[in-house]
Amino acid sequence: MSYEYDRIAQPASGLRLHLNENTAGCSPRVLAALHGITREQAACYPDYDEVTRACADRFGVSPDQILLTNGLDEAILGISIAALRRRSNAIPEAIVIVPSFDMYPACADSAGGRVVEVSTGSNFEFPCDAVLGALTSDTRLIFITTPNNPTGRSVPFSQTLQIARAAPDAIVFVDEAYADFSGESLIGHPELSSHPNVLIGRTFSKAYGLAGLRIGVLIGASAALGPIRRILPPFSLNACAVAALGAALDDVAYYEWYVGQVLASKAELYSALNRLNVRYWPSDANFVLVDFGRDARRVIAGLAERQVHVRDKTGDKASPNCVRITTGIVEHTRACIAALEEVLCGEES
Amino acid sequence: MSYEYDRIAQPASGLRLHLNENTAGCSPRVLAALHGITREQAACYPDYDEVTRACADRFGVSPDQILLTNGLDEAILGISIAALRRRSNAIPEAIVIVPSFDMYPACADSAGGRVVEVSTGSNFEFPCDAVLGALTSDTRLIFITTPNNPTGRSVPFSQTLQIARAAPDAIVFVDEAYADFSGESLIGHPELSSHPNVLIGRTFSKAYGLAGLRIGVLIGASAALGPIRRILPPFSLNACAVAALGAALDDVAYYEWYVGQVLASKAELYSALNRLNVRYWPSDANFVLVDFGRDARRVIAGLAERQVHVRDKTGDKASPNCVRITTGIVEHTRACIAALEEVLCGEES
Repeated sequence: MSYEYDRIAQPASGLRLHLNENTAGCSPRVLAALHGITREQAACYPDYDEVTRACADRFGVSPDQILLTNGLDEAILGISIAALRRRSNAIPEAIVIVPSFDMYPACADSAGGRVVEVSTGSNFEFPCDAVLGALTSDTRLIFITTPNNPTGRSVPFSQTLQIARAAPDAIVFVDEAYADFSGESLIGHPELSSHPNVLIGRTFSKAYGLAGLRIGVLIGASAALGPIRRILPPFSLNACAVAALGAALDDVAYYEWYVGQVLASKAELYSALNRLNVRYWPSDANFVLVDFGRDARRVIAGLAERQVHVRDKTGDKASPNCVRITTGIVEHTRACIAALEEVLCGEES
Repeated sequence: MSYEYDRIAQPASGLRLHLNENTAGCSPRVLAALHGITREQAACYPDYDEVTRACADRFGVSPDQILLTNGLDEAILGISIAALRRRSNAIPEAIVIVPSFDMYPACADSAGGRVVEVSTGSNFEFPCDAVLGALTSDTRLIFITTPNNPTGRSVPFSQTLQIARAAPDAIVFVDEAYADFSGESLIGHPELSSHPNVLIGRTFSKAYGLAGLRIGVLIGASAALGPIRRILPPFSLNACAVAALGAALDDVAYYEWYVGQVLASKAELYSALNRLNVRYWPSDANFVLVDFGRDARRVIAGLAERQVHVRDKTGDKASPNCVRITTGIVEHTRACIAALEEVLCGEES
């Protein structure tokens, strides 16, 4: 079986609600920082010690507990290589939840690991008991996403910690890419210091609007980060990313405004879907998974015709008939709702 | 034995002649492109299909023979993972030349391979016969750098192709990071199509002055690039790197001017070293390896006092007493020569 990330084609124009980006764009302060880049900064290898300290401050950890990466994707690759390196004849195993982010099985497989899939419950609830049941003496990596993508459902801290306790020889990677929108994070949890095998991932792609700059961060015990630091290149973040990150961390008001927009957007989308009698899963993230039943493909095509691009999830066996819609700023969500009403309720031509 | 890249501390100020950067900075056109970045570009996942085509045109290959990476470092990591993945109980081997770029053994080791070191000749000439003699049935990767770093010496095409022929089951990675300055490249060589196991690496960090933007490129047969494409994240280059690369490719005059500056700089440095009776190796790259004998540490410290930062290579067993000096624009090289003359000929205080 081959695992590969399905790189989505980029639409030439229209409303991008298909990649869970920040639909408002980055903060104006970030833009000013980017426009202040000099010829020398472009030509010199980047130095990100200072911004690493600023980032550590933001998350309330020390700089040695932080590793900045070229998007969280690079962190996922680094973790996979570090955890799944063969040290004997046994093939190391990685547990991935289905459905979740495609990059996990792709990276685990590339790193030479065996991918062990565990399905969520019938309502996409986190399968804690099934994960515990799937642990073997060869388990070296467990991918947990909270809130999960594409379902938007969170994993209770108690379940994550239970798994970390049961698998002390495995890295438990807790991908909190969307935790800015749930407002809940395992970072700073009082029990975390008892579990040095837990690594937490965060990204600046979503709430901070820096997907184009590629900035992820791994947070965990210094000893657990060591092997990943050794694997990843010494200059992963580029000079523009460094400048952007510093400015983004400074602009807390922008971040809070955007998180508020996403909350308001989800409320409006839920109302519309209730009105239209369409099934969805309430989400802790900046997107909503919607089950359009047999209308799914017609909805995707109809929205695209109206220049609204959403993510087709009908091809995934875990989510047939489903579409993932990014809920960014309210204005964009309203445009999506209007297009959706036209497609579902408009006169057939 | 542990292999690790020694990340050099960044000086706060002064002349950076220690990392083989472009000492003039990027092209003004690149700067204009960076200053044209929009909030939306910063917030959206980057699309680099168009710049991939432009890059393929520059190198005279087709887009499927090109893979853009987050600096050539990411390419080295990707190649190492792809080539050194264990498929049996045997541990795959990677041949590295000593001295050469520290990233090769670091990545090969991280990827789980066994590092096999082969030393250059007494005058740093490429050890072709010794590489051929080191080949085993477990050899999966051979790192060749031309011009080599830190020696500046080139590897004859015939020797690279001889090795590629002798090791058809191994990837032969030809790192041409400094080939802009030698003017010679294996890309387009008539025999290359007979060797689909050869991958060539180029970087935009040096002649194009984009080290801060992190842009490398792998060039080779589409089938050989496939496994590396699968391993590396789908969005490696960030949006600023994409914009910068497009502008850099457009500004051929800047590139040619800089390559000319490096040639003139080397000529001036050679003259000075001859005058000072100091040994060096004529270089095909944008730096010169200099043997200061027992004065080496005093020279490094004396230059640093005068705000000229060079690379200390005295710790490498292959180059005791040696210092690597970047030869960028002539003005900077003259400043370095003046400082060097003060240190070596000035009155002792």
